[in-house]
Amino acid sequence: MNIAIPIFDQITALDAVGPYEVLSRLPGARVMFVAAEPGPKRTETGMLALVADHRLDEVPEPEVIVVPGGYGTRPLTSDATMLEWLARAHETSQWTTSVCTGSLVLGAAGILDGLEATTHWLELEGLRQYGATPVARRIVEQGKVLTAAGVSSGIDMALTLAARIAGEQYAQAIQLGIEYDPEPPFVGGSTAKAPPEIIELVRSAAATLA
Amino acid sequence: MNIAIPIFDQITALDAVGPYEVLSRLPGARVMFVAAEPGPKRTETGMLALVADHRLDEVPEPEVIVVPGGYGTRPLTSDATMLEWLARAHETSQWTTSVCTGSLVLGAAGILDGLEATTHWLELEGLRQYGATPVARRIVEQGKVLTAAGVSSGIDMALTLAARIAGEQYAQAIQLGIEYDPEPPFVGGSTAKAPPEIIELVRSAAATLA
Repeated sequence: MNIAIPIFDQITALDAVGPYEVLSRLPGARVMFVAAEPGPKRTETGMLALVADHRLDEVPEPEVIVVPGGYGTRPLTSDATMLEWLARAHETSQWTTSVCTGSLVLGAAGILDGLEATTHWLELEGLRQYGATPVARRIVEQGKVLTAAGVSSGIDMALTLAARIAGEQYAQAIQLGIEYDPEPPFVGGSTAKAPPEIIELVRSAAATLA
Repeated sequence: MNIAIPIFDQITALDAVGPYEVLSRLPGARVMFVAAEPGPKRTETGMLALVADHRLDEVPEPEVIVVPGGYGTRPLTSDATMLEWLARAHETSQWTTSVCTGSLVLGAAGILDGLEATTHWLELEGLRQYGATPVARRIVEQGKVLTAAGVSSGIDMALTLAARIAGEQYAQAIQLGIEYDPEPPFVGGSTAKAPPEIIELVRSAAATLA
């Protein structure tokens, strides 16, 4: 099973690496980090680079697509090479998924029109321009299209997807393998639970905090 | 604040990227991925490479050290260059931390002698050879030394550390920024909660699942 994860400059690393860590453990999985031009892609902070080993056109028909987010998705939403690859790959994929603002790229490729979808909480309204209905949930499943909320939600999305692909027992084994029994130190990891002053702090410092 | 994350071939990517995603959001943070020889370092699956931009000896006195895990930690526990760098950097660090089997490297550098510590649940007993007392908790804090359990626990550890460094409000903002309000699809992410047959499945397929 070929799993394509497009990466790009100004990516949020965890958006890609969370799902990679889960999906690479599926039986027969081959995860490929793809880009129009292979090579190292820098995160938003510039402090880390992930390497894209494969050209987009080398992987035309992946069974699974995972589009991660980050500031770098903004230019991608008008990048013809990426959007054409995505639209075409989606025709034959078994699962088309995104994490965080990766859903805006799915939207720009015409994949979310008429669907419910999610993204990072700061960007939810941006989904409307692509004909999608924003939903403030951690994972939104619409047929073969799964969109996940901000950054860390890709882990939950990928485990959900692993259960669909390989069964619940296998997905449980992956969850135990990566020891995913979260103990976040605070309760406020979503806007539904965070104190208003913390939400305001993130809004006003979105460039560094979100 | 300089934060050094040593990386190496056969690393578990999420061990490094979870803490990176949290700690890079701290005010004034400069996260540096370091290695004896800079360049791309392949994960255990070979499907992804993270790039080390800095030589170990360029970063002799980081304020924070985070040692990630993976099969690649096995050769590291007898790698004189890494162990000498770690032992020396630990003398001046404000925080010395690990994720997953990264704690075995801290142990080999003499940093855990007489301390409680944790690691991936499959490797807990391995800590004893370094004079550490294994503890099956998600995060173990012993003065300035924090060790975390398997893979995904690095996110919880890094948020805990962020609160120590920048205060609870700032750490809460980071948690909301990465939308860390986990909804794991199963309850069995630790051996305390997983069904025996799932634990056995991971044990018998540790090379692919853990």
